[in-house]
Amino acid sequence: MNNKIVERIEAAREIMIKEELDALIVLTSDPHQSEYLADFWKTREYITGFTGSQGTFVLTRDFAGLWVDSRYYLQAEEELKGTGITMKKMEVQGTPEYIDWLLDNLEEGQVVGINGKTMSVKAYEYLAEELENLDIELNPNVEPFHYLWPDRPALPKEPVYEFSSLYAGLTRGEKLSQIKTKMEDIGVDHYLLCALDDIAWTLNIRGKDVECNPVVLSYLLIGTQQSIWFVDPNKVSAAIKESLKQDNVFIMEYPAIYEIIAQLEDVNGILCDPNTTSWDLYDAIQNIDVVEDTGMVMFMKALKNETEIQHLRKTMRYDGIAILRTELWLRENLKKEDNITETQIAAKLKEERAKYDLYVGESFEAIVGYRENGAIVHYRATQKNEATVREEGILLVDSGGQYLTGTTDITRTWTLGQPSEEQKKCYTAVLKGHIALDSAVFPKGTRGVQLDILARKPLWDLGLNYGHGTGHGVGFFLNVHEPPQGFVANLSQRGTTALLPGMVTSNEPGYYQSGEFGIRIENLVLTYEKENGFLAFETLTLYPLEINLIDRSLLTQEEIKWINNYHNKVVEQLGEFCSEEEIIFLKEACAQL
Amino acid sequence: MNNKIVERIEAAREIMIKEELDALIVLTSDPHQSEYLADFWKTREYITGFTGSQGTFVLTRDFAGLWVDSRYYLQAEEELKGTGITMKKMEVQGTPEYIDWLLDNLEEGQVVGINGKTMSVKAYEYLAEELENLDIELNPNVEPFHYLWPDRPALPKEPVYEFSSLYAGLTRGEKLSQIKTKMEDIGVDHYLLCALDDIAWTLNIRGKDVECNPVVLSYLLIGTQQSIWFVDPNKVSAAIKESLKQDNVFIMEYPAIYEIIAQLEDVNGILCDPNTTSWDLYDAIQNIDVVEDTGMVMFMKALKNETEIQHLRKTMRYDGIAILRTELWLRENLKKEDNITETQIAAKLKEERAKYDLYVGESFEAIVGYRENGAIVHYRATQKNEATVREEGILLVDSGGQYLTGTTDITRTWTLGQPSEEQKKCYTAVLKGHIALDSAVFPKGTRGVQLDILARKPLWDLGLNYGHGTGHGVGFFLNVHEPPQGFVANLSQRGTTALLPGMVTSNEPGYYQSGEFGIRIENLVLTYEKENGFLAFETLTLYPLEINLIDRSLLTQEEIKWINNYHNKVVEQLGEFCSEEEIIFLKEACAQL
Repeated sequence: MNNKIVERIEAAREIMIKEELDALIVLTSDPHQSEYLADFWKTREYITGFTGSQGTFVLTRDFAGLWVDSRYYLQAEEELKGTGITMKKMEVQGTPEYIDWLLDNLEEGQVVGINGKTMSVKAYEYLAEELENLDIELNPNVEPFHYLWPDRPALPKEPVYEFSSLYAGLTRGEKLSQIKTKMEDIGVDHYLLCALDDIAWTLNIRGKDVECNPVVLSYLLIGTQQSIWFVDPNKVSAAIKESLKQDNVFIMEYPAIYEIIAQLEDVNGILCDPNTTSWDLYDAIQNIDVVEDTGMVMFMKALKNETEIQHLRKTMRYDGIAILRTELWLRENLKKEDNITETQIAAKLKEERAKYDLYVGESFEAIVGYRENGAIVHYRATQKNEATVREEGILLVDSGGQYLTGTTDITRTWTLGQPSEEQKKCYTAVLKGHIALDSAVFPKGTRGVQLDILARKPLWDLGLNYGHGTGHGVGFFLNVHEPPQGFVANLSQRGTTALLPGMVTSNEPGYYQSGEFGIRIENLVLTYEKENGFLAFETLTLYPLEINLIDRSLLTQEEIKWINNYHNKVVEQLGEFCSEEEIIFLKEACAQL
Repeated sequence: MNNKIVERIEAAREIMIKEELDALIVLTSDPHQSEYLADFWKTREYITGFTGSQGTFVLTRDFAGLWVDSRYYLQAEEELKGTGITMKKMEVQGTPEYIDWLLDNLEEGQVVGINGKTMSVKAYEYLAEELENLDIELNPNVEPFHYLWPDRPALPKEPVYEFSSLYAGLTRGEKLSQIKTKMEDIGVDHYLLCALDDIAWTLNIRGKDVECNPVVLSYLLIGTQQSIWFVDPNKVSAAIKESLKQDNVFIMEYPAIYEIIAQLEDVNGILCDPNTTSWDLYDAIQNIDVVEDTGMVMFMKALKNETEIQHLRKTMRYDGIAILRTELWLRENLKKEDNITETQIAAKLKEERAKYDLYVGESFEAIVGYRENGAIVHYRATQKNEATVREEGILLVDSGGQYLTGTTDITRTWTLGQPSEEQKKCYTAVLKGHIALDSAVFPKGTRGVQLDILARKPLWDLGLNYGHGTGHGVGFFLNVHEPPQGFVANLSQRGTTALLPGMVTSNEPGYYQSGEFGIRIENLVLTYEKENGFLAFETLTLYPLEINLIDRSLLTQEEIKWINNYHNKVVEQLGEFCSEEEIIFLKEACAQL
């Protein structure tokens, strides 16, 4: 039995009784609808013990359940052992399937509690309507973790820093000016930004409030005359305050947004995104015309400018070299000794990336999964519970760096011994899908949900599939998962957003044989416009594929040509940074098929 | 100048002045949201002269415009000459882009008129809301064609007939019983059906009210105890009335639906589809809980039963033979004489299909487009304005039959002389797309919008595309365009509906070189479940492809194998009905690549 979690759940039930709640919902979220959370907001992890990046916890008087998507089935099963919490398998990632359970299991007149700060207006309104249909009440002012979590971490205090326009390509003033022009076109004089990466992008400011995401917990209220940045003033140096003032951006305390927004007067419309604004903040807006933001800054940020793209191309060379040195180190040490572990590989990757002077940190905690651990899609090795890697079996390595010159995200799958025919067949199918998506040429207006199938088809033809999306947008020295676009087999925003020139997206099909091995091949691709007006992808990531896992007989001539061309480019781009030993290794890894 | 149309528009403007309207909308629609219309409802065609199957006409005091999608750009340009009507090119088929024009061009306080009978509740509510945002008024009770159209055709009077369960696979009683079970599950005791094909399917009744669609203008109100069919009683024989009564279905006059629905009392919820119920009928429903129908009968009808499928497989053999005899007749006559026209080919197709004793009529007016006419996607030849076919160039033939044993829809593209390399390249690309979609293997839940790209990819790779969907559902001795599923590059119902076993869908990629030639290859495919749980397609249509337009060097081994297998099946399935001369022709057409 996991006593710690059992006790926390019991304590939560006591609060529910006191507050007259029949059910309590704990989301994986914060007041900015962030994906990665500051420690203060890791309430779902605290109460369930489940460490995955997504999941929704529902507690009633006699039931405790955690809804997780297919990436986390294995991990959640493991981590929930002895907690009394039932794992509920979600059918479709990102959908509120727990609501159906509530509707089926609660009765008229019962009360559901939630912290309205952690839910977007849009999600809240949907939940409230569904519950109301069955006359179930929703209490949005429930914050049990004030009491439940005695040693709850404080909100982060790290100082923020300026992000130079030499990297960003545009100054803060230029960005604000472009935003204000668009606001005028729409006919609003205020714009509320809640998404932390939108704010960081707009202000050319970065911070350390969230692990792996260089963002700052704050709100930004842009006015046509002046703007207010709601942020802990202790984090902002006098120099930065002065520089912000030059652009008519003034600072107020983080929580003051509620008061200011409630008092706004003589406003000619406020632009506001119901997907990123929390229910309670939206609720505080009074007597002002709210115009729905369909992602103005989100789209500006998604379309990388030429400066960003040039930096990113260069960054990929450093990132590739860091992985090369890690792989070489791994393979040489495996020959000599027998005690390299998954976390040591992750540490080595970090160490090698850190040698580049513009490196800031990891863009996410690296996934290093050996053999059956690779089949757990979002596996995180811990020193307590990790595998020792040997000269056999398959190793999946998914990692990325945050550099001032861009954010990377790459997955490679290496065979450390003689692979089986089955493994080669699967790797080759994943690679065929990866190549098909990378090679796509498509008219403007084409959406990710249409392209996704190109990556899956070779697997589907074998009766196989994978339970995650094929790709996500990637920020520029910002969040590694950046909306709106992506490749995915559903009708979410990620699937239904049309690809546009300048977007950087991951291409990462995979295949997972539970208990055996995991395969994923991930490059970042840049959408660009061809001369004939069609769109296509430029492959940005530079690293050899695993030729020892390729079954050449399953490839078409075009696919072989793609692989050889890609490997030529990798040698050409990484070669100049290589030592003699490294270049031998690189050329062998990139041998022509 | 087209005086006839100019006069009609002037007359309409006079009515607008009298009724104090600033704009008038004329939809291509009827009170059942039908695609094909009874002559009485062809008001948009009457006032514009445009004969296409879709289009929306907007008239103001100083503007007349017709919104058409890309299938009709060429045809509308031709037909609107001299009318003073501006063709407005729609970007996305099926969307109400004319509303944006109204919002841009009308002023506060102005009034828009429409016949609320011809608009679904859903579409009406959207229009009304958009106009209301700008304080523009909407008058839904405008029926100008009472005055404008002196010789307007009467509503059809043709008798209806029973459709045997030997063909339908289920009796009327069985269908009603299945529907009532589902109604109980939902918790409603009434169900309003407005879509004519839903009604025909449910009652196992067919009629002749709409050209090419064997449906009956009527409404059906299903009650858990008894049902009322609102239809012109003169169309229904005493025997059919008696047979309906056995199933507790009673008859009332067609327009009585308004009165009955307004007077309904003690009703425990009525199921009603806002996409097929007209605004004025929905408006007449008072004091009853309306539950939104998400297509109960539509889905039941879409999943063809084993009896229907067996009949359809057999029907394809007769349909193929009819085309074979037409092609043979055409090719032989072209050698002898020089005066075969497009309409003669269409007539010959009809004549050959009619030789099958279960033939009822065409499933749509055949499209026979020679050379540049083939590039007009929905071209209809008329004796006045048609091409004479010669032993050169490309001919596109898209046709279908209504048989008691199913509905067919097939397109073939024939070269009548020596094709150019360009033509072969394009035909081969279309064929590659057709094969890729036909061969798709995909997990349950996959939607048409995901599969559509398989058909387009070979064209996109050449920088080419086509401006129509890749496929539509097909009824069983019902409408040739049957919702909900299909293959399409947008997020309409057709694109977002998951394919299910039993669905029959067309697979019809094409390529159109304006002023030169048109290519389309269309087969019907049946979705079925494979042993491994994945879904796949069975090709139903049986007819040779045009091997003289295939560039073998552009095909993969798998594609060549697909073509050879398909041709073997065609010879095997059609052969036994062939004369000696026909079998020689067939075998040559199906020669192995």
